[in-house]
Amino acid sequence: MPKLLPLLLCLVPATLLAQPQPREEWVLTTRVYGNLLHQRLWLEREGERLRGSLDGDPLEGTSSDGHLHFVVTSKSGARYAYTATPRADGLTGEADWPGTNDPKARVSHPFTARAVPMRPPGPPRHHDFEPTTFSNTFSADLPPVLTLWPGDSVNTRTLDSGGVDEKGVTRALFGNPQTGPFYVGTAADGDTLVVHLKRLRLNRDTADSLDDLVGRAMGPRLAAKAQAQGLGKPVRWKLDRKRGVARPESPSPRMKDFTVPLRPMLGGLAVAPAFGFPPFSTGDSGRFGGNMDFNELVEGNTVYLPVSQPGALLYLGDAHAAQGDGETSQFALETSMDVEFAVDVLPGKSIATPRIESPTHIIALGQAGSLDDALRVATAGLTQWLEQDYGLSLSECAQVLGTSAQYRVANLAGRNVGVAASLEKQRLARLKPLPPP
Amino acid sequence: MPKLLPLLLCLVPATLLAQPQPREEWVLTTRVYGNLLHQRLWLEREGERLRGSLDGDPLEGTSSDGHLHFVVTSKSGARYAYTATPRADGLTGEADWPGTNDPKARVSHPFTARAVPMRPPGPPRHHDFEPTTFSNTFSADLPPVLTLWPGDSVNTRTLDSGGVDEKGVTRALFGNPQTGPFYVGTAADGDTLVVHLKRLRLNRDTADSLDDLVGRAMGPRLAAKAQAQGLGKPVRWKLDRKRGVARPESPSPRMKDFTVPLRPMLGGLAVAPAFGFPPFSTGDSGRFGGNMDFNELVEGNTVYLPVSQPGALLYLGDAHAAQGDGETSQFALETSMDVEFAVDVLPGKSIATPRIESPTHIIALGQAGSLDDALRVATAGLTQWLEQDYGLSLSECAQVLGTSAQYRVANLAGRNVGVAASLEKQRLARLKPLPPP
Amino acid sequence: MPKLLPLLLCLVPATLLAQPQPREEWVLTTRVYGNLLHQRLWLEREGERLRGSLDGDPLEGTSSDGHLHFVVTSKSGARYAYTATPRADGLTGEADWPGTNDPKARVSHPFTARAVPMRPPGPPRHHDFEPTTFSNTFSADLPPVLTLWPGDSVNTRTLDSGGVDEKGVTRALFGNPQTGPFYVGTAADGDTLVVHLKRLRLNRDTADSLDDLVGRAMGPRLAAKAQAQGLGKPVRWKLDRKRGVARPESPSPRMKDFTVPLRPMLGGLAVAPAFGFPPFSTGDSGRFGGNMDFNELVEGNTVYLPVSQPGALLYLGDAHAAQGDGETSQFALETSMDVEFAVDVLPGKSIATPRIESPTHIIALGQAGSLDDALRVATAGLTQWLEQDYGLSLSECAQVLGTSAQYRVANLAGRNVGVAASLEKQRLARLKPLPPP
Amino acid sequence: MPKLLPLLLCLVPATLLAQPQPREEWVLTTRVYGNLLHQRLWLEREGERLRGSLDGDPLEGTSSDGHLHFVVTSKSGARYAYTATPRADGLTGEADWPGTNDPKARVSHPFTARAVPMRPPGPPRHHDFEPTTFSNTFSADLPPVLTLWPGDSVNTRTLDSGGVDEKGVTRALFGNPQTGPFYVGTAADGDTLVVHLKRLRLNRDTADSLDDLVGRAMGPRLAAKAQAQGLGKPVRWKLDRKRGVARPESPSPRMKDFTVPLRPMLGGLAVAPAFGFPPFSTGDSGRFGGNMDFNELVEGNTVYLPVSQPGALLYLGDAHAAQGDGETSQFALETSMDVEFAVDVLPGKSIATPRIESPTHIIALGQAGSLDDALRVATAGLTQWLEQDYGLSLSECAQVLGTSAQYRVANLAGRNVGVAASLEKQRLARLKPLPPP
Repeated sequence: MPKLLPLLLCLVPATLLAQPQPREEWVLTTRVYGNLLHQRLWLEREGERLRGSLDGDPLEGTSSDGHLHFVVTSKSGARYAYTATPRADGLTGEADWPGTNDPKARVSHPFTARAVPMRPPGPPRHHDFEPTTFSNTFSADLPPVLTLWPGDSVNTRTLDSGGVDEKGVTRALFGNPQTGPFYVGTAADGDTLVVHLKRLRLNRDTADSLDDLVGRAMGPRLAAKAQAQGLGKPVRWKLDRKRGVARPESPSPRMKDFTVPLRPMLGGLAVAPAFGFPPFSTGDSGRFGGNMDFNELVEGNTVYLPVSQPGALLYLGDAHAAQGDGETSQFALETSMDVEFAVDVLPGKSIATPRIESPTHIIALGQAGSLDDALRVATAGLTQWLEQDYGLSLSECAQVLGTSAQYRVANLAGRNVGVAASLEKQRLARLKPLPPP
Repeated sequence: MPKLLPLLLCLVPATLLAQPQPREEWVLTTRVYGNLLHQRLWLEREGERLRGSLDGDPLEGTSSDGHLHFVVTSKSGARYAYTATPRADGLTGEADWPGTNDPKARVSHPFTARAVPMRPPGPPRHHDFEPTTFSNTFSADLPPVLTLWPGDSVNTRTLDSGGVDEKGVTRALFGNPQTGPFYVGTAADGDTLVVHLKRLRLNRDTADSLDDLVGRAMGPRLAAKAQAQGLGKPVRWKLDRKRGVARPESPSPRMKDFTVPLRPMLGGLAVAPAFGFPPFSTGDSGRFGGNMDFNELVEGNTVYLPVSQPGALLYLGDAHAAQGDGETSQFALETSMDVEFAVDVLPGKSIATPRIESPTHIIALGQAGSLDDALRVATAGLTQWLEQDYGLSLSECAQVLGTSAQYRVANLAGRNVGVAASLEKQRLARLKPLPPP
Repeated sequence: MPKLLPLLLCLVPATLLAQPQPREEWVLTTRVYGNLLHQRLWLEREGERLRGSLDGDPLEGTSSDGHLHFVVTSKSGARYAYTATPRADGLTGEADWPGTNDPKARVSHPFTARAVPMRPPGPPRHHDFEPTTFSNTFSADLPPVLTLWPGDSVNTRTLDSGGVDEKGVTRALFGNPQTGPFYVGTAADGDTLVVHLKRLRLNRDTADSLDDLVGRAMGPRLAAKAQAQGLGKPVRWKLDRKRGVARPESPSPRMKDFTVPLRPMLGGLAVAPAFGFPPFSTGDSGRFGGNMDFNELVEGNTVYLPVSQPGALLYLGDAHAAQGDGETSQFALETSMDVEFAVDVLPGKSIATPRIESPTHIIALGQAGSLDDALRVATAGLTQWLEQDYGLSLSECAQVLGTSAQYRVANLAGRNVGVAASLEKQRLARLKPLPPP
Repeated sequence: MPKLLPLLLCLVPATLLAQPQPREEWVLTTRVYGNLLHQRLWLEREGERLRGSLDGDPLEGTSSDGHLHFVVTSKSGARYAYTATPRADGLTGEADWPGTNDPKARVSHPFTARAVPMRPPGPPRHHDFEPTTFSNTFSADLPPVLTLWPGDSVNTRTLDSGGVDEKGVTRALFGNPQTGPFYVGTAADGDTLVVHLKRLRLNRDTADSLDDLVGRAMGPRLAAKAQAQGLGKPVRWKLDRKRGVARPESPSPRMKDFTVPLRPMLGGLAVAPAFGFPPFSTGDSGRFGGNMDFNELVEGNTVYLPVSQPGALLYLGDAHAAQGDGETSQFALETSMDVEFAVDVLPGKSIATPRIESPTHIIALGQAGSLDDALRVATAGLTQWLEQDYGLSLSECAQVLGTSAQYRVANLAGRNVGVAASLEKQRLARLKPLPPP
């Protein structure tokens, strides 16, 4: 799977490569038996001497004859030797690794590297980004569409889950195509990515849904009835942006006055999965976020995701004009969206599961193959939050949860289901959160 | 199990029995191979002639020589013959039934009957009821502590889950002992009992809890940690009724300013189970309600329960001063309570699962052995509500749920877990609920 | 609920009570706020002096003026004082207990006691027992139908699940009526009851079943299809005892040669539940056994159940002529049965979940509200077995299970489901089981 | 994601392309907004005229000036126009499709095609295949390593789950690297692939495992104990191929005579996932098979998998020397393996879930996020089998399952779990299976 490297490398302007900077950030990609391992490389040059680190392990080497030679020493003392040749679009070379079984044996793996664009001086910047490509997977191997730095914000758009944009034009394959990935400078495995949802605004007047009930929500009797009554038909909704409500375009008589308040949300928000996982479907979810379909991903809220790859690689898509808990109709009010978000990075902070913070609540989201399992993940996520940020012991967590926990069903429509465990921030105010580390 | 009959019968004043009324209501209890079948008997006397019904099936007979003879004809035409002799405390006799396998065969079962006190004329009444006995089961076989009629209200008290009253006196066995059962006149199998929670007021200054996490909420890692840190210790809470908050009596330093708002609720509310089920533990739950441990059973809300037995037989107990979703600490803030409630009956209306109505929401509660199963029950309950009371088709229900459903985890602390499916009443206002049948 | 005491007491022959034995065994039943606490009482008399124990706690007292006075001292030093008066059918009196909250307070509870018949001298005995009463609950409060001692065996019969005997006569209420309870002398809380299924023989030529699929086995599509095709109709099976096969009485053409081998089994086998639990439905299951509906309860196998009550109180019923795993048709081939079993007691051995031993396998049965939970119980039961009887560490258990565990679905038809975790005995032979303690 | 096309195309010998055959089979790959749609193309040439089909839809066109022009007409009448230019390694061109939303609009997608090697004349062939590349995903986009035809058999090898071969050399990344994919000529979406496991033979003397219990098998207490005792340590096993047993290399004293019979099996067997799914992890499972970790994938058994892609694309790997049900130790006895298998195709036969046939049983495997869900899938798979191959109605299926179904837990170690529903073939013999269609 060395397939993406040419694309990756072509993003780096030649000028940058021609004039290497004192402290350079690179993404080094080793092809390990056909699998791409992406690592963050820091390089400093002093004459011919090289120093730096690779995913935190120290690095020493030399630059001579147009080639770079460096050795990375792991915590356990193992030595990984790299020889690289600069190309117009980055580095290419061979890595010489110790054997997995026999440490005396040496194994050679090809690698490439692309330079991350320099962080521009000055305050964080605002980007207007018009997407032209969309992804049907949450992948660690796709070239970033834009490089951001902590504090930056972005104005962009998402297609609806069918790949249709705000003008009714199909621009991607159905199945929650995503805008992104955005590379977030400094973010690395073990950090937390912070995504502030600054604005989520509808940009068209229709949404598509179904009159369906997801299989997981139906016992045998209800399932038989749904089948007998032919549920699962398309329902188009009109979005009245002025009044802030949606209504079925062709309602049945009894439903003709029925409206629901618009509450635009993102169904999909994800970082790239960790090494060892192939790309996830944009219909899937997990620790990395994904197609969470949780109606608290709304304007004004902040999402925290555990970073596994250099630059985090942020994806977003599958907006809903409104959605009940669980997305029980399989399709919510699916529509395109104008999205403004800002990013930040919490270095060295590792979280077990996605977190959402609203003005009033902290929310840990568990996603797993059953509600019972998802609830356990959510509970572990919420107790971890209280331990990490509020300094509580597990005994104290238990007292807080027993009196104050709120559990909601977030998602019933995917392979995984979601359960959200939350607490009112007001109740926690007197616990005096720990200062950030 | 004829065990309770003497107790049952002694509740009927002899004077009443001596002067039977024109239209008499009785509870007729047949002992079917050791199991008590309770049925509602209506009797009208015209000279020696008897007319009436037994659980809706028509009855004809005669009264002579101090004995009553009557025959009940079932929908399928089967004949059930009863011969009864009046005693000081009711009736006693033998029922002659067709055989189960061989309809020509006849089988004799003993029965007794107790007269239900006459409904007093005039408007509904208010009762002050000081309980002296408490039940550790939700049973169809216990004698009623009081007879109510639709519209009546009651002031009473509940013990805490350990059996302790507002003065600190142990008055019943631990394990959610209940006040009741209350017999609600006219309620019968297939009806719905309505319980308005008019006032739930704390009557003491302490509650007992644990610093625990229920097993169902913990995955392997959290479970190992909980065990290593010795979770499960008692925590006493002070209830500051003036300020409306609770706080741990001996908090750890970090928790010393932690308070939770008081929100008194009933953990237990139940009707008697249907014929064929033995008494349920007061720690169990199901279609009949039970130890629901759901924090929406608060003052101002109304609970609907499906009636299975003559008089419904209402139980209540296990009050909590406050409780997070799921009662994750196994014990909430357990305390005694002053309770005022009013009852009503919806004749002929059969509901699949308990319902709760708040000023703002309708809520169907599913209770089952896993969250996934409980959610299916809750969903079926909520669609039934929309079908029955709002006249929606299932397609219309699906559109409402998909945009508007709210799912919460109600209970994690019992053998069953609970999931609550709810809708804001405001959203349903434009659907023009059907007039009550 | 003192309801059963008269029945309990009348089982004790007056002669026995008139001539108390040197070392007497009694069942002492205290009515604790309406709940019956049964305890095993040992009494020795030396003149007026009394010694003995109550559920293991030591007892001292005197006998004078026809009254017995004794004090039981608990492990924590609390004193429980009893004053008893002999009656024709046992003892009756008042127990004076320390208060639950305030140990200085004293609370009085009424009690009765019945003498257990003396263990006859000589070798174990064989009993022929023709049942005349049947129970629709697994209850700790029913009078024993027979007293057995370790090593005794019994020939008896069970009704089919509809209450019909081998002659087609309805003798009990439908719903798995049980034969029993059998009191097993010496068995007490914390022991294990051993039930050897020596003979299970069909005693009639028909069985009743359904063409159904239990709800838990069907996803939405299959459920809709089952409903559309009208599944759930009665199917009568002919039992050809000579050839050892069953066949539908009126098969569809394609099924006309279909037969299944007879493999008679007991669906129900249980001991009485522990204090604090009301009687369980004979359709329910749990740690106490119950309606396990597991097709390894066949002739030649041995079942181990954890004892919670004096005498264990063994129930059996709901025989099946044959049953697939899970009893997916809701009714297996339901029939009556001739049953011969023998009992034994493992004093002081406490097991977490029912165990079954076949000539070839050891099997731990987990029963819970979902298969995922039941599997966890079964796994804990099997590792406990390896720890207790084979002296393995948990690390060793993990190696044995990883290579050798067998997991089957036992039951899908009840409120609980069952998962069986088993191991071939042959594989364990080289682990040298520990000598029995 | 056009990434793989160059690789795909280079497999086709130039000579073949220079001399097109009368009836040519091609795999046509359209890049739909970055996603690869693989379809089976049949082409017949008559002078300049082209006829044929694309995934079953008819095709007409012309060949002129070295270019091919053809139009495919779908069932609904939509027209898809293709213009192709031959290259050394296949075809390349543009497809002109109707728009998704607006059928009058036309959308252009690039495509390529590679010719499938001609089926050699004569009887099926046997292949010896020494793998040199391995895949860590089940992907539809990888180039086939070998083309097979129905009836062909293959001798090959698999690495152990850590990527180590029979000589102890690491040849792939850990995580169940697979041999394959094998392209099976004629297999297409909607067919069933048949894989006969003709020989599974160990090829080295060690296997690697753990002394672990998977999280799903442990309740809170067992989890705490496992953590306290440090479970999860590596255990190396010696494989005594002569005696047919495995034993721990360094057993604890009590385990020193413990052996388990060798029963070599394949943990992984899969076809490529359908269009719309990204590659699955080789640790994942589903309808396509995958990392089933089911100990019935042994020599002599046959596996049926539903085909979704042209050529099916068969993968195999992750062999175990022996495995208990559920792979409760997370790692079974992981080892490399010599594998001989033969393939067949059942055209037009669509199955819902993987099937396994042993000499004695038919087995449907359900794989889902919980045991409860997996059991429902397995049950649907088994009833489908009886309907399709034995012509049973659902009522007849229910009678067969109720008396004869066997349910086993197949797998507990993956993201999905597995439940196997099976029937003895002997019982079904008298049902006269339908002749194959």
